Amino acid sequence: MNDSPVLLTPGPLTTAVETRRAMLRDWGSRDPAFIALTAELRARLLAVAGGEGTHVAVPLQGSGTFIVEAAIATLVGPADKLLVLINGAYGERMVTIAQRLGRAVETLRWAENRPVEAAAVADVLRADPAITHVALVHCETTTGILNPLPEIAAVVAEAGRALLLDAMSSFGALPIDLAAVPVTAVLASSNKCLEGVPGLGFALVQPAALERAAGNCPSLSFDLHAQWTGFEKDGQWRFTPPVQVVAALVEALRALEDEGGPAARGRRYQDNFDTLWAGMRRLGFELFLDEAVQAPIIATFRMPKDRPLAFRAFYDALAARGFLIYPGKLTQAESFRIGCIGALDRRDFERLLEAVEETLVALETA
Amino acid sequence: MNDSPVLLTPGPLTTAVETRRAMLRDWGSRDPAFIALTAELRARLLAVAGGEGTHVAVPLQGSGTFIVEAAIATLVGPADKLLVLINGAYGERMVTIAQRLGRAVETLRWAENRPVEAAAVADVLRADPAITHVALVHCETTTGILNPLPEIAAVVAEAGRALLLDAMSSFGALPIDLAAVPVTAVLASSNKCLEGVPGLGFALVQPAALERAAGNCPSLSFDLHAQWTGFEKDGQWRFTPPVQVVAALVEALRALEDEGGPAARGRRYQDNFDTLWAGMRRLGFELFLDEAVQAPIIATFRMPKDRPLAFRAFYDALAARGFLIYPGKLTQAESFRIGCIGALDRRDFERLLEAVEETLVALETA
Repeated sequence: MNDSPVLLTPGPLTTAVETRRAMLRDWGSRDPAFIALTAELRARLLAVAGGEGTHVAVPLQGSGTFIVEAAIATLVGPADKLLVLINGAYGERMVTIAQRLGRAVETLRWAENRPVEAAAVADVLRADPAITHVALVHCETTTGILNPLPEIAAVVAEAGRALLLDAMSSFGALPIDLAAVPVTAVLASSNKCLEGVPGLGFALVQPAALERAAGNCPSLSFDLHAQWTGFEKDGQWRFTPPVQVVAALVEALRALEDEGGPAARGRRYQDNFDTLWAGMRRLGFELFLDEAVQAPIIATFRMPKDRPLAFRAFYDALAARGFLIYPGKLTQAESFRIGCIGALDRRDFERLLEAVEETLVALETA
Repeated sequence: MNDSPVLLTPGPLTTAVETRRAMLRDWGSRDPAFIALTAELRARLLAVAGGEGTHVAVPLQGSGTFIVEAAIATLVGPADKLLVLINGAYGERMVTIAQRLGRAVETLRWAENRPVEAAAVADVLRADPAITHVALVHCETTTGILNPLPEIAAVVAEAGRALLLDAMSSFGALPIDLAAVPVTAVLASSNKCLEGVPGLGFALVQPAALERAAGNCPSLSFDLHAQWTGFEKDGQWRFTPPVQVVAALVEALRALEDEGGPAARGRRYQDNFDTLWAGMRRLGFELFLDEAVQAPIIATFRMPKDRPLAFRAFYDALAARGFLIYPGKLTQAESFRIGCIGALDRRDFERLLEAVEETLVALETA
């Protein structure tokens, strides 16, 4: 059954066959067996970030954007003000979400190749006491840049504000230690570094923040306070959960533990990235980011200046060889992206590099 | 791999093993192969209701409640007024959704065992010209009652208002002919009569209604106008789709066509219901609804008065025999529900009846 292409994308990504096979059964969503599966899901999600003593896990149906919107709509009240730290498309999206909801929003922007800077955040928080919440994207999938979570979290906590962390592309592989780093809410989804299938997002939230947020959310479906109290009441989802997606994510979380947890997964992804980058450099490609700020999650490569490579032709040729890469999302340069995450290891990247090399020859002699 | 229980629920329900096996591969969500799958999904959804010439299909990530909220948030504007026709919990939920969104909302209520009446709707529409939209639940899963869609649709159309139809429990099995019955938007989900797995909702909407609704929705994620224009632009989902759930639904839609379409499926469900009701009557159970208003989707049975049957014990005993039934949702009577939908036929219900009979004996002699 494994006729799947190799997905070199930021998700949906290549999953383990065992994860997909966990979807081969039906579940009654209000049955004790599924209630137990949901409890295991919530406990395992907390454990990934060491949040057992401080946070609660609130899964939500839908895509990663849904959980980001739900967190903003629930936690940022009508009288609050959100500061969004932006160096890519996912930061911009949070601004759009907040504005649509009619929430007061302030922005701080950096270039797409520059990490967010804690000192500038501290200045803005000092200057604007109306800001109650700060939103940060941990790893911006736009470029693959890693933002300095511990420094930003320290500055936000020192200023007495709440931090909302979009950890979509980092959760499960890059260090997030909720026992050591003050974060009000961590937001992520099933289908990135956790290596589940898409269809679920989740928030790890401080329960006091949820309690304060009761009644804030204009959306019934996105009300994370109501979603949380629903789970606490009887262990059930308020509305029909994607039972097979839940089963796949629990299987993937068990596999994450078997692998050795986020540290081991992060090392595998780093090895994937190192293999990829060494090979691509040899083939004449340039990395968009400085290596110092590059997370081992997704790599943005510039289209080579001396080789006029059309993305579509490059994509199709690699797809014909079984590898799906990802288009660029930069505002400022022609580029493409290659994800390093998923159930892949350095051998997959060695094969990819062979396919890239063949493709370059084929396109140049065409 | 089929160690699944038999789900006698309103969904998630028992799916065909072929539907589940369609989830065994990975898909790149922006790859041409998945774009083609999405196009097939949208075309097949329209075809189920004969909406090819009049409506567009807009799938949305999440549960059925999400698509109902998205339709209200998008189609009912801030200056509009929604009339909700209510004879069960799902009508009530639409009121909650609209009120949370700050939309003007009016209600008309009937008892849970009484269908919605067209004459009363006509009166209210005549009396209140501010009402712009009417919302109807086709089959109320609360009880299993069928509301008279053609009559209500005619009255709403005659009054020049828009009809939003929650067809969650009917779509794919009960007749909805968009070429003959005027409905502005039909809302349903993957995991009921279409026999897919949960994780997707969809709206079949008149494009003119979507065009008028541009800018209405306070939610980025739930903006069905933006979701639609996204599909029309490049065939892609705006935000990560649950690719395996999509693949399973396309497989299930192909199976629906192979079965002979909604008419054939409706006949199988009617046969399931008839088998169930004949057997349950023989065992001393009473149907909550009059048969004349009972849809062959889900049956509500009263707890027998002469046999003090605790739901939990009854549920557990049937579960031990491989059958999962569903709790009641009536406000006015002790009851339980048995779904007639899913990849099941009369033989499954004959086996269920044997299990119910054994269970009754076991619980009485315990």
